[in-house]
Amino acid sequence: MNKKVAIIMGSTSDLPVMQDAIDVLKELGIETDVDVVSAHRTPEKMYDFGKNAHKNGIAVIIAGAGGAAHLPGMVASLSPLPVVGVPVKSSNSIDGWDSVLSILQMPGGVPVATVALNGAKNAGILAAQIIGATQEDVRERIITYKESLKEKVTKAAQEMRNNG
Amino acid sequence: MNKKVAIIMGSTSDLPVMQDAIDVLKELGIETDVDVVSAHRTPEKMYDFGKNAHKNGIAVIIAGAGGAAHLPGMVASLSPLPVVGVPVKSSNSIDGWDSVLSILQMPGGVPVATVALNGAKNAGILAAQIIGATQEDVRERIITYKESLKEKVTKAAQEMRNNG
Amino acid sequence: MNKKVAIIMGSTSDLPVMQDAIDVLKELGIETDVDVVSAHRTPEKMYDFGKNAHKNGIAVIIAGAGGAAHLPGMVASLSPLPVVGVPVKSSNSIDGWDSVLSILQMPGGVPVATVALNGAKNAGILAAQIIGATQEDVRERIITYKESLKEKVTKAAQEMRNNG
Amino acid sequence: MNKKVAIIMGSTSDLPVMQDAIDVLKELGIETDVDVVSAHRTPEKMYDFGKNAHKNGIAVIIAGAGGAAHLPGMVASLSPLPVVGVPVKSSNSIDGWDSVLSILQMPGGVPVATVALNGAKNAGILAAQIIGATQEDVRERIITYKESLKEKVTKAAQEMRNNG
Amino acid sequence: MNKKVAIIMGSTSDLPVMQDAIDVLKELGIETDVDVVSAHRTPEKMYDFGKNAHKNGIAVIIAGAGGAAHLPGMVASLSPLPVVGVPVKSSNSIDGWDSVLSILQMPGGVPVATVALNGAKNAGILAAQIIGATQEDVRERIITYKESLKEKVTKAAQEMRNNG
Amino acid sequence: MNKKVAIIMGSTSDLPVMQDAIDVLKELGIETDVDVVSAHRTPEKMYDFGKNAHKNGIAVIIAGAGGAAHLPGMVASLSPLPVVGVPVKSSNSIDGWDSVLSILQMPGGVPVATVALNGAKNAGILAAQIIGATQEDVRERIITYKESLKEKVTKAAQEMRNNG
Amino acid sequence: MNKKVAIIMGSTSDLPVMQDAIDVLKELGIETDVDVVSAHRTPEKMYDFGKNAHKNGIAVIIAGAGGAAHLPGMVASLSPLPVVGVPVKSSNSIDGWDSVLSILQMPGGVPVATVALNGAKNAGILAAQIIGATQEDVRERIITYKESLKEKVTKAAQEMRNNG
Amino acid sequence: MNKKVAIIMGSTSDLPVMQDAIDVLKELGIETDVDVVSAHRTPEKMYDFGKNAHKNGIAVIIAGAGGAAHLPGMVASLSPLPVVGVPVKSSNSIDGWDSVLSILQMPGGVPVATVALNGAKNAGILAAQIIGATQEDVRERIITYKESLKEKVTKAAQEMRNNG
Repeated sequence: MNKKVAIIMGSTSDLPVMQDAIDVLKELGIETDVDVVSAHRTPEKMYDFGKNAHKNGIAVIIAGAGGAAHLPGMVASLSPLPVVGVPVKSSNSIDGWDSVLSILQMPGGVPVATVALNGAKNAGILAAQIIGATQEDVRERIITYKESLKEKVTKAAQEMRNNG
Repeated sequence: MNKKVAIIMGSTSDLPVMQDAIDVLKELGIETDVDVVSAHRTPEKMYDFGKNAHKNGIAVIIAGAGGAAHLPGMVASLSPLPVVGVPVKSSNSIDGWDSVLSILQMPGGVPVATVALNGAKNAGILAAQIIGATQEDVRERIITYKESLKEKVTKAAQEMRNNG
Repeated sequence: MNKKVAIIMGSTSDLPVMQDAIDVLKELGIETDVDVVSAHRTPEKMYDFGKNAHKNGIAVIIAGAGGAAHLPGMVASLSPLPVVGVPVKSSNSIDGWDSVLSILQMPGGVPVATVALNGAKNAGILAAQIIGATQEDVRERIITYKESLKEKVTKAAQEMRNNG
Repeated sequence: MNKKVAIIMGSTSDLPVMQDAIDVLKELGIETDVDVVSAHRTPEKMYDFGKNAHKNGIAVIIAGAGGAAHLPGMVASLSPLPVVGVPVKSSNSIDGWDSVLSILQMPGGVPVATVALNGAKNAGILAAQIIGATQEDVRERIITYKESLKEKVTKAAQEMRNNG
Repeated sequence: MNKKVAIIMGSTSDLPVMQDAIDVLKELGIETDVDVVSAHRTPEKMYDFGKNAHKNGIAVIIAGAGGAAHLPGMVASLSPLPVVGVPVKSSNSIDGWDSVLSILQMPGGVPVATVALNGAKNAGILAAQIIGATQEDVRERIITYKESLKEKVTKAAQEMRNNG
Repeated sequence: MNKKVAIIMGSTSDLPVMQDAIDVLKELGIETDVDVVSAHRTPEKMYDFGKNAHKNGIAVIIAGAGGAAHLPGMVASLSPLPVVGVPVKSSNSIDGWDSVLSILQMPGGVPVATVALNGAKNAGILAAQIIGATQEDVRERIITYKESLKEKVTKAAQEMRNNG
Repeated sequence: MNKKVAIIMGSTSDLPVMQDAIDVLKELGIETDVDVVSAHRTPEKMYDFGKNAHKNGIAVIIAGAGGAAHLPGMVASLSPLPVVGVPVKSSNSIDGWDSVLSILQMPGGVPVATVALNGAKNAGILAAQIIGATQEDVRERIITYKESLKEKVTKAAQEMRNNG
Repeated sequence: MNKKVAIIMGSTSDLPVMQDAIDVLKELGIETDVDVVSAHRTPEKMYDFGKNAHKNGIAVIIAGAGGAAHLPGMVASLSPLPVVGVPVKSSNSIDGWDSVLSILQMPGGVPVATVALNGAKNAGILAAQIIGATQEDVRERIITYKESLKEKVTKAAQEMRNNG
């Protein structure tokens, strides 16, 4: 059964944003496979990746790109797997609007599960939730992870009230 | 193992848009459970739904809402399951921008898998892909479905060239 | 009779913005109660807060949040009190548009009194005006406060004309 | 003690939108006073209105206008009362963005409690909540009103499930 | 005959932007009268200014403001003189969109001659052109001024070609 | 002395919008000269028009265009006269944003007095105010015109209150 | 030498918009080759088309698509030929902004020559100009075509002045 | 046969952006001719340039400008050559939206081949592709150039995987 999450990005300059996805998946005990795949500069590599990911143990694909971001949508057109798209606010982007719209607004038949601008951490959590949709042990880890978020907020609130 | 897809919406007026998700999941052989759950008018019902969906055989939640759309994000905060958000261009929406941004731009820790404005059909396909991420029989149906899309386009292109 | 203003925010990182509301209410002699309540990470705490605020001497609730900001609207759905929403331009926000639209564009039946982006000072003044709507002593303080604004502008104008 | 809600609008063409505020306040048992006051065509009338409303039994002012909408903000500058602003999507508006921004983005010191585009119904409910902030009988009516909303949604949901 | 240009602004913090108008009018030999007039904090002063400017030798009014900028439009409603509006990108503005729309989108009957965001220099030139519309000596100075712009560009182009 | 107002537009399809300027100037007793001048299809005609308008008795130029609207700015670059720009929401425009921005955002040195989207009526009034800046008889007509606006609003308000 | 213009579109529903390109190229005497190629539903066909167009007598490619429009950019990544992109305001587009930004904002190295929203006519003229860049006979036809535009405007202006 | 690329810009302040076009054309072995031509400050020079470029060995014109950017469109109206427009995010621009829309949204008959905001490098590549549309030796250099892009990405991906 497929269990790995592939994390691809259009350029090495996207890595500082995409690292959050790698980190949170490691924290949640999910194996990852990271690569640079450019829709516009290495279209053949993208084609091979999209056609074969589901045959290589990949369960979910996370794809990040900025500007006129075609990588998530093109991989979604090539693969039967769920694709999580991360709009990256790259240096050539108009405040992120181009990244968001060119990933989100896919035509009927080819969805991309889009997360917030630069939301790579949420992309990682979503990928784990997708595996956890049918795998109970992973879902349990999600529940534990969410509890830890609540505790952090509760503790921060307590400190603020003590200080304030 | 959880196998059903829950489809909830903020108002019965969202049904004409959300019906596309119901239809495509039926076509893909996935069982659905449809309900109206309003974040703002029935918050207790939303709370119960979010807390218990994963205990009731649900694998994926699809939530559609418009305007300041809080249903997908609030359910995502309450449930460990993956939540697919459908921004609905409802009558009180400013051209859909409010629906899109209030679903997409979730804070770190609580992702919503957002699809295009009114993209309920893609929400259904994405839900099936999520189940298919680890269930091979469902993934095979996705592959067949995508082949049928290709055939439709190819046939339409052929007809256009014959007519043109 | 309820007389206090509750000031809640989605994260301690919102405090630098929200402090303006605390300060102006102190200046206007209104008692405040400050806490961190996250719609997405502590939904149970939010539920309890919203359901009980009006039983705890609170007359007005000020809620600040950024990005897909659900705190003001969700508290407004749970409480019969007037809720003043402060859209915060947080680090995960797209130039504040998401914060503004996800607080402002509430559906019919559940209003949020929205102020300007990062407008916590105005949220505080508005909360005092709300109490002053029916309490004459508080309204008198608002009138005095507005006179002081006029004097500051008049003095600054005088200085500029003297210098220029 | 002031108990009435004044409802003013920039033009009679705003009445179809603003009628929702009149209706819901009637339903909630609050007395209203309705007039046309144009910031740009009757500035003197606006000045008199703003300066004297709180002396005439008015507790809350609802002001609706479209395009470069100055009425809510100017009245807020002249009156110590809370002013609820309704951005109207009038015929000269650019999709409502001008109406929203010219009402919402008030400078520090002069808040306008802004509701959604064309959200006059919510303006009415908010005005009632403002009076109910300190008047328990009005607050009880708000609680009853919100229960009726919940019942409507619950019933609609039941019907949809019966039909679907 | 009226010959002076009044330059007013909503706050002394607008002066760094508005100084460009003062400077270019000095360069063009037009007398100016500069003041701070806040629509929201000194509405009475604004009222007096607007009602009387044309009786005090003023031919054109330049008004600059930011955010929900009501000063230019309100002065235009009070005065028969042409009002040039300068949208200022102030600290409380959403990237300048609020300033632009709340000055530009005036209703039928009350125009504001709007220039570019922070375009105070152009406001000054426009005020001179307005006086020059009927006064030939001022128009001659505009023609000379435009020639000097052309020469600067021509010289810069020459230098770039020499260097490049 | 120049006294006429030239009204030019990029296409005859702009006439239904621009007619409002012609009508209001007639009402205000100002002589007009109307023509179609296309920046992109008749650049030579535009060049001649811009270079010579001030020699032909023209005091103010009103120019209307839509989409990437270059006519107002180009005429402003060629003429020393004040140019009033009317952004037209033409069929090829993206909701009017292109028309507004390509007329409003002129560089330093070349102002265009921009009015609201489709605001041709205000362009006409502004042109009259420009002539009235230094011509007292025209200014008197503006004052009378504004009084008539006030009376219309006052009467409409009276009728609404009688009916309501 | 390559002389043909290929016109491709993402869906037969784009044909009513794209027909303008076919028509104007016919008028300019340029041979065309029209097909439906969907980036998302027929990625293999797109790959073959992009890799081989320049070997099949094609000089310029015109590609039209709407929403998250990846066809023009992906073909530009696969072909060494100039690609003209037509953003189509399709039914799933958010007022055309997604179509424009996902075609225009290409990363460094892979340009798309983008024209206006629904600007297929201009795409055809641009394709002819591209061939005319080095082919004098085609350039002469462009010059003649532009003269005919000027004549049409001049005649329309004449008629308007005669009628007006 | 025309073989040169003219690169013009509205101001010397645009040179840091436009230099990318000069550099990449040099790298691709195409001769360039660089100048400053301001639509608004040197309209006569622009007129002469546009009317004569195709008689001076120019095959393609690249024009860069910011704010209300009229240079690319006006040159396109004057010349039969293909014009590549570069929207520059200049200091007076509203986040680049004005630059993009005033270049992109040209009316039917006068296309501008628009590239991404600040996308001068792509303008250079596009100009080379335009010459390469009919000139095989130039097209070969484009193919080689694109191969080098692919190699750079492949190498960067390899390094990231080695490091990660």
